[in-house]
Amino acid sequence: MLEQELKTLVRDVPDFPQPGIVFKDITPILQHPEICQQVVEEFAKRLANVEFDVIAGIESRGFLFGLMLANYMNKPFIPIRKQGKLPHKTVSESYKLEYGQATIEIHEDAIPSGARVLIHDDLLATGGTVVAASKLIEKVGGEVAGFCFLINLEFLQASGRLDRFSTNVISLLTYA
Amino acid sequence: MLEQELKTLVRDVPDFPQPGIVFKDITPILQHPEICQQVVEEFAKRLANVEFDVIAGIESRGFLFGLMLANYMNKPFIPIRKQGKLPHKTVSESYKLEYGQATIEIHEDAIPSGARVLIHDDLLATGGTVVAASKLIEKVGGEVAGFCFLINLEFLQASGRLDRFSTNVISLLTYA
Repeated sequence: MLEQELKTLVRDVPDFPQPGIVFKDITPILQHPEICQQVVEEFAKRLANVEFDVIAGIESRGFLFGLMLANYMNKPFIPIRKQGKLPHKTVSESYKLEYGQATIEIHEDAIPSGARVLIHDDLLATGGTVVAASKLIEKVGGEVAGFCFLINLEFLQASGRLDRFSTNVISLLTYA
Repeated sequence: MLEQELKTLVRDVPDFPQPGIVFKDITPILQHPEICQQVVEEFAKRLANVEFDVIAGIESRGFLFGLMLANYMNKPFIPIRKQGKLPHKTVSESYKLEYGQATIEIHEDAIPSGARVLIHDDLLATGGTVVAASKLIEKVGGEVAGFCFLINLEFLQASGRLDRFSTNVISLLTYA
């Protein structure tokens, strides 16, 4: 079963990036092309009833499966990047981190008006980045059609923060 | 012809990230899944005679086609990331930028001893990042089998800097 295989591969790294946090390291998954292919196929299966036009992936780890999934489902891929990285005219959104804040950006012409956007990242934790990404999509005239994550740290209860954008929240591996 | 299609899609952004530099924006390519698929197939075709065991992609834009290509060619994918991003034990390499310096890292256990590594990034400019990535591969016991880029800014003459690691340098789109 895919979920079990993923769970076996994900590596817990204690006290990263800060003391007290157990980081979920997905890099061992990437060493197994047959599992990566299954990840993409499972996403596609679970997205069968979600209507969307484009996939937006969040820098950096959302670029990994984001483009692969977009290609597999024959959809355009839109990168959402950290501040100062996208070269054309951008729209920005800032959000709070535990200490300080972060800003992400999207090209202002990246999404056709009214397009339904699936947002992808590798991991859903507190949801701050994904909420900011959703606001970006709406700012440039798109509509959030759903979210897909490799991992959902369910115990952080971020899904509730995503409801106002879309209730389509798909994750392949959850930690309750 | 793929090269011509890519050339049409790549967007020139003048004075980014600094005055006087014309940035090659690849994001319009990502909006065309059929072109992305052709990119991967063309890489695979040109790599037919290059023997390698794993693909290493450089953060962030090397993650895009890197994982897709690795999957298409049934190879493990290894991320090379900016300092402080990889959670497990890492090996680092610093290199000079026009102003200041940058550091990239690889997990010390990412590559089996003696493995032949294909390095991928979206764009070859002066080669500083790719040379540092090659040194990282050697530091952790791998061997550089070659390089593949979407774009080679040939007028910057970086290929000569890569020779000492491997003469297999593949790029789909060159600017002479």
